[in-house]
Amino acid sequence: MTRLLLIGTGLIGGSFALAMRRSGCFQSIVGYDADASALARSQARGIIDQAITDPVAEAARASAVMIAVPTDAVAGLVRRLVAAIGSRSIPVFDTGSVKGSVIAALRNSGGMPAQYVPTHPMAGSERHGPDAADPDLFRGRRVIVTAQVETDPAALARVREWWVAAGAVVVDASAEIHDEMVALTSHLPHLVAYTYMDWLARARSANPGIFAGPGLRDFSRIAASDPTMWRQIFAANRTVLLQEFDGLLQALVEARDLLRDNRLDELEALLERARAARAGLLERADD
Amino acid sequence: MTRLLLIGTGLIGGSFALAMRRSGCFQSIVGYDADASALARSQARGIIDQAITDPVAEAARASAVMIAVPTDAVAGLVRRLVAAIGSRSIPVFDTGSVKGSVIAALRNSGGMPAQYVPTHPMAGSERHGPDAADPDLFRGRRVIVTAQVETDPAALARVREWWVAAGAVVVDASAEIHDEMVALTSHLPHLVAYTYMDWLARARSANPGIFAGPGLRDFSRIAASDPTMWRQIFAANRTVLLQEFDGLLQALVEARDLLRDNRLDELEALLERARAARAGLLERADD
Repeated sequence: MTRLLLIGTGLIGGSFALAMRRSGCFQSIVGYDADASALARSQARGIIDQAITDPVAEAARASAVMIAVPTDAVAGLVRRLVAAIGSRSIPVFDTGSVKGSVIAALRNSGGMPAQYVPTHPMAGSERHGPDAADPDLFRGRRVIVTAQVETDPAALARVREWWVAAGAVVVDASAEIHDEMVALTSHLPHLVAYTYMDWLARARSANPGIFAGPGLRDFSRIAASDPTMWRQIFAANRTVLLQEFDGLLQALVEARDLLRDNRLDELEALLERARAARAGLLERADD
Repeated sequence: MTRLLLIGTGLIGGSFALAMRRSGCFQSIVGYDADASALARSQARGIIDQAITDPVAEAARASAVMIAVPTDAVAGLVRRLVAAIGSRSIPVFDTGSVKGSVIAALRNSGGMPAQYVPTHPMAGSERHGPDAADPDLFRGRRVIVTAQVETDPAALARVREWWVAAGAVVVDASAEIHDEMVALTSHLPHLVAYTYMDWLARARSANPGIFAGPGLRDFSRIAASDPTMWRQIFAANRTVLLQEFDGLLQALVEARDLLRDNRLDELEALLERARAARAGLLERADD
């Protein structure tokens, strides 16, 4: 009897469970969520077969444990799950958007467990909760795996198989490269979009809403994301974000200076480079 | 015989002409474009009935003149068209994204012509040229009209009717409010998105493309827009943009400081305000 233990039955965990049901990788799925109504909803939607109240006590009876909870809770959960699992070969994998701080916390509290496989599915939505769960959420999307030297190769192989079965394209990278690249391609754009919308709304006598069109809507779509989740992501990737933020501010000041000094040929060259860069960078981005 | 003279047969002019054909507001449409291949293409697509080589010479025989050319060419064209039209009641209207600099240029070169109606359709696309023209481009979109005290009420009424016939929702505002609001809701987001993508691609040893997902794609969609057109828009609205840019830079520095100083409750409050602001501002944004 293969059993998936799912901790966190929201958008990511719920979507993975629905994909696993379809693929038949597990014979049963049991789930826990700190939010009792989300847990009940995920059982009602058929995301899990059974709701449990103590995931750590259940861990040794599972074939695999997926941790799909906010980033700042991952390291503590891994530590308690691994203590309960002991030497059993039960892969434990998470879905957090930041990897370095979780890995550092584990190294600083007893070392890297062999069963733990750090993964990050590059999929999401401004919607959240079990009602947003979708078995196709990971279809064609990348999942970054940041395995450590201590990671058990068998656990790693199985986690990769499950993500592939969920429709994902699995990519390996170091935690350092992962955290830098997601800062650049996701975390910093979120922070800019959030800051832009807050600034736009603050201290305006007129309401700019009637002038807002599809450009602003797309530019700021990520500012509709869950503030609690993003507070945690920003905090978890804080060191990398602060480094990169200064570089971005410098680039913005330089662009401002091109306009201020009427260096319009240089400004147009910037626009041309940006358009070409976007076409090149997003060639592989998901639709 | 009612005849529309269209100067500029690209996305905006071509879409308006197709909408006018469908509505039957004009019996014929003649067109001019500085780009001979675009002109030929617009005739081949049935956007115009006849291609002309000298729009100023044709102006007195038209019932209306639409100027759908880059912003920096509008004031000079209006001046020459009005000189050819004389006292005839032939509305001349433009579609430029910036109004204040065009109006100031006209005031500084002989005064505001009564026949000129400044308009700005809040519609567009990262695609351009006659092949992108679409009779539904303006459907449900806002057209801002920034009439001046000198504007002939009859000319104003007819231009409004044509935009309404094209499916648009017509909104009146002063040129000052218009230029400030489009700086905030369109021009500055474009400049930020362009600068972000140029910065992201410059001086990166690794290619971030494999980490780029739908969030970055939407955030940067406006950076795929035409650089030549946007250079002109930035230059035309330069004074307002520079004022607002400094306020945005200050807001970004403040957000950076919240993260740097671990003031995470205040950062989360910013994210909450931003999400609420976006929902409020974009309530009326077009889909």
